[in-house]
Amino acid sequence: VATTHFVVLGGGLVGGFIARQLAMGDNAAVTLIDRDQAALKRAAAAAPVSIRPADLRDPADVAEVVRQADIVVAALPGSLGFQTLAAVIEAGKHCVDISFLPEDARELDGAARRQGVTCLVDWGVMPGLGGMLAAHLAAQLDRAERLEIMVGGLPVVRRWPLEYSAPFSPRDVIEEYTRPARLRRGGRLGTRPALSDVELVDFPQVGTLEAFNTDGLRSLLHTLDVPDMVEKTLRYPGHAERIMLLKELGFFSEEQLELSGGRIAPIELTSRLLIDAWQIEHGTHEFTVMRVDLTGTEGNKPVRLRCDLLDRTDPKTGDFSMARTTGWPAILAARELADPASPLRATGIRFAENAAADAQFYQHVIDSLRAAGVSLEFSRTDLASQGNGR
Amino acid sequence: VATTHFVVLGGGLVGGFIARQLAMGDNAAVTLIDRDQAALKRAAAAAPVSIRPADLRDPADVAEVVRQADIVVAALPGSLGFQTLAAVIEAGKHCVDISFLPEDARELDGAARRQGVTCLVDWGVMPGLGGMLAAHLAAQLDRAERLEIMVGGLPVVRRWPLEYSAPFSPRDVIEEYTRPARLRRGGRLGTRPALSDVELVDFPQVGTLEAFNTDGLRSLLHTLDVPDMVEKTLRYPGHAERIMLLKELGFFSEEQLELSGGRIAPIELTSRLLIDAWQIEHGTHEFTVMRVDLTGTEGNKPVRLRCDLLDRTDPKTGDFSMARTTGWPAILAARELADPASPLRATGIRFAENAAADAQFYQHVIDSLRAAGVSLEFSRTDLASQGNGR
Repeated sequence: VATTHFVVLGGGLVGGFIARQLAMGDNAAVTLIDRDQAALKRAAAAAPVSIRPADLRDPADVAEVVRQADIVVAALPGSLGFQTLAAVIEAGKHCVDISFLPEDARELDGAARRQGVTCLVDWGVMPGLGGMLAAHLAAQLDRAERLEIMVGGLPVVRRWPLEYSAPFSPRDVIEEYTRPARLRRGGRLGTRPALSDVELVDFPQVGTLEAFNTDGLRSLLHTLDVPDMVEKTLRYPGHAERIMLLKELGFFSEEQLELSGGRIAPIELTSRLLIDAWQIEHGTHEFTVMRVDLTGTEGNKPVRLRCDLLDRTDPKTGDFSMARTTGWPAILAARELADPASPLRATGIRFAENAAADAQFYQHVIDSLRAAGVSLEFSRTDLASQGNGR
Repeated sequence: VATTHFVVLGGGLVGGFIARQLAMGDNAAVTLIDRDQAALKRAAAAAPVSIRPADLRDPADVAEVVRQADIVVAALPGSLGFQTLAAVIEAGKHCVDISFLPEDARELDGAARRQGVTCLVDWGVMPGLGGMLAAHLAAQLDRAERLEIMVGGLPVVRRWPLEYSAPFSPRDVIEEYTRPARLRRGGRLGTRPALSDVELVDFPQVGTLEAFNTDGLRSLLHTLDVPDMVEKTLRYPGHAERIMLLKELGFFSEEQLELSGGRIAPIELTSRLLIDAWQIEHGTHEFTVMRVDLTGTEGNKPVRLRCDLLDRTDPKTGDFSMARTTGWPAILAARELADPASPLRATGIRFAENAAADAQFYQHVIDSLRAAGVSLEFSRTDLASQGNGR
């Protein structure tokens, strides 16, 4: 059996986790790329990962570092995602991307097809696994009516005022808090402001969280035939209002202000301050919760299908659930892509929900997540006895 | 009768109001100084005020513009207050200052005495009038035990999230929100964090406000012999927590951060953003509320003496209560200073509470405020029938 060479772009908490897991698989050689030497050293100390320092802001450098790769996995800040993806495709490499890119990756579909490469994008927990679960549930119904996906990663210990910390770039999180949330209502595409429609929802073993609109449906708006679809982010109650306060006062503005020391966009300062406020230190206990809830009909019977995911910091390794649940779908897909015979190998831009139809891969994902300690509970509720199904 | 020449430094909403009122008095010539031409023109359009554009950041310019003055009134941002006051004293001019200076003005007492000038500082509503009222009330008791002064200026229409606007420099307001609040407890000096000890208090015709510790006692800590003294700022409920959020996240930090466009102290950006958020436009309805509450004993009987002040935007002129209540004590004092025989003419640094002993001037202040439409209600409550007086 030949060795597969994986190149992982981005050695943050998620990229580092992916690199380490890939390196612990059979017949795999992994190179991790980042400009932060400390991040590289941490990964190399924990698993047989080759490391290479490189600044990936220049796409020419991306082309250079992926040259020897069989499969590329990208785990970069959203701002670098699109140009990096384009460079990887141009280099003719199959890839899995979990970067939260603000652009529409489908614009690269033509290029990927021309290059004959498979490009799996938005392949984390949500977007990613949540879409795969939604597509799987939708296939069980005769008519899917309403999809609601709620997802969040949170620290167990709540520190005032934002009660949040994350292994992601604050700028990407703020991006989620500002971009209008695209959704579907009555079959039509629409938008709601980010952070709107705040509601309180109880989760078993977690407690009461608040859910608000964010722009997380992304490709599902086009790939899934469900007339009503909404995605919400979960945080501790009060978070949305505090974020709205910062937004309302102008702290998320991209417009530069002339100050005594130079020209500054408030968003840049805010991101810098939130890096400190949201810092997630090794040893922190956190959890990731996701609910995929689909209502519709089976025959003429209204039913609710639900999948509840819950994961916590790995007590042995200290790996964060946010890194684990975001990383695992990408790790499994990257390994699968190494097999030229895999159905996942269709060329072009492909989303996680496209893979739900591949029953074997889908079941492999579910089994592997459970084996890794991620709780996934599926439930079916007959709504006929409860009224009209809402 | 000779004409008194008043020079008013600072043509903001308060300085402009002071200049106009002084100009409408008898035998007065008023020159208003500011670097903002628009502010000067507004004042000159409303009253016979001479105007002179000048940037007062250089104390040499201050000396120059006050040369012809008999009496100087300073209404500048706190950051310019101390150096300006020093320059005015050096120029040998009597003055009234309402700038919220962070420094201790008593350091200039020697200089003022050497120059033989009277220097009335902290001479607004609070610090200022509140201290005068407190000293007046304290003189009525055999033993004063506890003084509490609560004061705030607020817009009638509350706009989320901070529900505040003011004719003062945001940086001076943030200064109040960050400097530890000095107070007296059991006769000893102490401090509490700014924004601490939040409580809800009802005010007639106003409703429920929140009160929290700020560093407003200032000279009262030394001039008034009351063992327990506290000063609190009044805002709409929720304000303190929202401000604490900004503080906790680092937005009030003075420490410069290296960002792409230059080196920036977060406080500078925040002040800039709050200028917009706290902008108070002409025609806005606002009010100022202050309660001076003193408990103690008369003979052996426990009593509570209270003065409640309430003022609103002048419906005819549009003058804000915050400008009116801050400006009137300074206007009355400036006019009084023009009389060489006035007891107010003692040399050195003098605070508003020092003037309470001058019964004639005190009564003149009360009568003038009422004539200007400011509501002042004094009450006395016998606490013997209610327990121990607390």
